[in-house]
Amino acid sequence: MESADQLGLSVAFQEAQDGYKEGGIPIGAALVRVRDGMADVLASGRNLRLQKSSATLHGETSALENAGRLPVEVYRECTMYTTLSMCSGAILLYKIPRVVIGENANFKGEEELLRSRGVDVLVVDDEACKTLMARFIKEKPQEWYEDIGEMY
Amino acid sequence: MESADQLGLSVAFQEAQDGYKEGGIPIGAALVRVRDGMADVLASGRNLRLQKSSATLHGETSALENAGRLPVEVYRECTMYTTLSMCSGAILLYKIPRVVIGENANFKGEEELLRSRGVDVLVVDDEACKTLMARFIKEKPQEWYEDIGEMY
Repeated sequence: MESADQLGLSVAFQEAQDGYKEGGIPIGAALVRVRDGMADVLASGRNLRLQKSSATLHGETSALENAGRLPVEVYRECTMYTTLSMCSGAILLYKIPRVVIGENANFKGEEELLRSRGVDVLVVDDEACKTLMARFIKEKPQEWYEDIGEMY
Repeated sequence: MESADQLGLSVAFQEAQDGYKEGGIPIGAALVRVRDGMADVLASGRNLRLQKSSATLHGETSALENAGRLPVEVYRECTMYTTLSMCSGAILLYKIPRVVIGENANFKGEEELLRSRGVDVLVVDDEACKTLMARFIKEKPQEWYEDIGEMY
């Protein structure tokens, strides 16, 4: 992994860990702008379903929300880092060109849809991300199934 | 239109109008559960980009957020009403089976993606929805382009 990717994914993982400590679903994300080889973390966020009874603040939406309103051209220089493969509407809306995903072993999101629209998708298969998520799913399966819209 | 659709779309349009009065982007939505012929408005919401500097509270996400956490089976009995064709990640995530869209003349969202995943999509071509949205776009083109992720 490149150093910008290591930075982005580590910020996302920190959010996931913080979420876990709060009793939440441990999915984190970071929105990072890369220009001239410099990586700038614009915002990060984590799934807040359990903490805020939120049905829309997942990892990546939480990061986008925390970033606030940005000029559309900024999104086009960004990479979205998420600890887990998730859904992708906002990424397509804002035309974010690159997504780095910690793991997709615990859940496989809309990676193929993203690729079919020209988004550069990298799945890192990160052990720490996988282990933390698997632990949560084992501990709170009902909340996890709610998060992915499946019956438990 | 059936009476449940008239109810759902009128609630969505009221949200759009309220948003316009606040100086916001006039897109509204309503999440309606239909069982045994009875329509129950679970929640409604409107685009809050300008009011709350929010990059994620569009029409349909705002309605989903206001609905709070719902059991996954509830979403599967719902129709999402929106005044304008928008993006669709959350609708797919929660497997909402039906979407009624006020108009898609001012913007065409991910209708084909929704249909390809089995969602029943009805576009109503509603004059009131079209007129309100066109008026806003004319008045605040920059904010509108920001909302659809395009350069102005």
